[in-house]
Amino acid sequence: MKVAGSARIVVDGLQYSRWNRESILQWHEGGLTCVHVTTVIWEHAREALSRLGTWNRLFAEHADLIRPVRDAEDIRSAAQEGRVGVILGFQNASPFEDDIDLVEIFHSLGVRIVQLTYNNQNFIGSSCYEPHDGGLSRFGRLVVRQMNRVGMLIDLSHVGDRTSLETIAESSRPVSITHANPRSFFEHPRNKPNDVLLRVAESGGVIGVAPYPRLTPPGTTLAKWSQMVLQLAELVGIDHVSIGTDFSEGWSDADLDAIRMGRWTREKDYGAAITPEDRGWAKWPSWFRTPAEFPQLVIGLKEVAFSDSDIAKIIGGNWVRLYGQTFRPSPLVPPSAGDGRRPRSTS
Amino acid sequence: MKVAGSARIVVDGLQYSRWNRESILQWHEGGLTCVHVTTVIWEHAREALSRLGTWNRLFAEHADLIRPVRDAEDIRSAAQEGRVGVILGFQNASPFEDDIDLVEIFHSLGVRIVQLTYNNQNFIGSSCYEPHDGGLSRFGRLVVRQMNRVGMLIDLSHVGDRTSLETIAESSRPVSITHANPRSFFEHPRNKPNDVLLRVAESGGVIGVAPYPRLTPPGTTLAKWSQMVLQLAELVGIDHVSIGTDFSEGWSDADLDAIRMGRWTREKDYGAAITPEDRGWAKWPSWFRTPAEFPQLVIGLKEVAFSDSDIAKIIGGNWVRLYGQTFRPSPLVPPSAGDGRRPRSTS
Repeated sequence: MKVAGSARIVVDGLQYSRWNRESILQWHEGGLTCVHVTTVIWEHAREALSRLGTWNRLFAEHADLIRPVRDAEDIRSAAQEGRVGVILGFQNASPFEDDIDLVEIFHSLGVRIVQLTYNNQNFIGSSCYEPHDGGLSRFGRLVVRQMNRVGMLIDLSHVGDRTSLETIAESSRPVSITHANPRSFFEHPRNKPNDVLLRVAESGGVIGVAPYPRLTPPGTTLAKWSQMVLQLAELVGIDHVSIGTDFSEGWSDADLDAIRMGRWTREKDYGAAITPEDRGWAKWPSWFRTPAEFPQLVIGLKEVAFSDSDIAKIIGGNWVRLYGQTFRPSPLVPPSAGDGRRPRSTS
Repeated sequence: MKVAGSARIVVDGLQYSRWNRESILQWHEGGLTCVHVTTVIWEHAREALSRLGTWNRLFAEHADLIRPVRDAEDIRSAAQEGRVGVILGFQNASPFEDDIDLVEIFHSLGVRIVQLTYNNQNFIGSSCYEPHDGGLSRFGRLVVRQMNRVGMLIDLSHVGDRTSLETIAESSRPVSITHANPRSFFEHPRNKPNDVLLRVAESGGVIGVAPYPRLTPPGTTLAKWSQMVLQLAELVGIDHVSIGTDFSEGWSDADLDAIRMGRWTREKDYGAAITPEDRGWAKWPSWFRTPAEFPQLVIGLKEVAFSDSDIAKIIGGNWVRLYGQTFRPSPLVPPSAGDGRRPRSTS
């Protein structure tokens, strides 16, 4: 089932599954042209190499179904080839360790989107779950500049509000929230207050809203979720709203513990779960059980009266524009950008 | 001083210095178009990332003088730009650790030449200094195939004779000896017996002969060294002889210990030094004190009556041909090359 004509570009702004051929076939069934996949949650540099190695195997083994995406042009190529383009990303800057050189190294390995922090404070800044967010660190400022320079999109989804605002102020390129909702829609540390949403949009960036059930009020219907998308578009502008489902599958319960607890704690941590009943794997809503049901989201958007051209932006166009603005090295940000701020650039 | 017309391509098949702007300027003075540089001796994967990061810095800081070389075309571009092309290489497969996926990872990072072993046995095979060379290991066979597939030139310079012969038999692409001399010229474990030299040539490969004083008889003159080159060309054919100086500078005495002893011994090891008098830094001959004196080697080759076209092959043409045959992924070696031997290919 295709969302629309074969020319339509459909992008999922973030997924984190244990992928195999079956889950890749779900992408095709859902009419997806491109998916940003999480390859790292807590891993350091050496471990990240193996995660990327696993993706090299997937690309070789399923070359009939998927292809790597290193710039926005590759997404158009994927559409023409009838394959799904895959953007490699990190949900934590942990593979950079404390080494500024590793930003360029991982860009060379194809990584194009990096969330500055996962659930914990790191060398760069604080997450949305830290009791106190001290903002962007000294090293963090340099990482932002280096990501700007080499062509890596900054993701603020799990990042704390203060670190997010300081990152946007520091960045000379547009930034993203690949998978979160407005806090006004559902009060949760992982969702975003209006000032962060507005600053991301002002940077030229994009917010990927999520059907992920922990980031929506209990019992959210497709109509209610679509209404939230409409309100967000009214707040930040239609050019700055897209979708990042945060879809996840194929993991065991032990994997769930590892995703939440990494090496950092021997006490139970429940990540985004708020209530005790909510501590296991999230149950996905009836209107989005797998990426094969991406077309349902389009139906929901149609019913809140988005125009076809608005829907094209939300389901892929905005992401492709942003990727085109951020995935290539910038001639405006020289390697010796020592004194900091550069003019904001969108190319 | 240029060796000849600006169209002439001059390649040094291996150097291992602690480079800075001054040593890069020596390359220009010597008329070099391209240098294969060693970035790793004992380093594991994570450490290798930092060595490559250092090269990314050098490329950025000295972009007026050098450029990276990822395929043979880049060498022609370097010549046109008046810059020296730099090929990144490892003198040890240690960064692959025991992980076959890391071959492709390091190819993606620009590494194009890897010596299977440095001075010690590793997961792949044995070095020329091991008391017993057990040949290519199970993992070694897979590394050879994977290097064939991804487009990485195999270097046998420090590799033991049996491991070398088994590697050549396994490889579907030509292989190299980037920096060694015939053992018939000077009896030394690092120099090569005729059967290895002949098999390398039969693979379509290239042998880079070295003015490095530990690999030549004491007091070797330029005339005597050039005579050796002539005899080697008569043995293996003019298309299979080039130069790899093994030039090294800028290191401290502590660095010399680290180059020889890595982490593997607390007892003194003297690498290629045979006599106690020879244990410090080698004194380079009067006719090749630095890469700025590369034109001296050409004078020596002229005096043993090599033709101009032969000299063009020796000083660069053969390397460029071999790089063109080995640096790109091979369509003839599929990723699932499970059953081993593939037809030998030169492209």
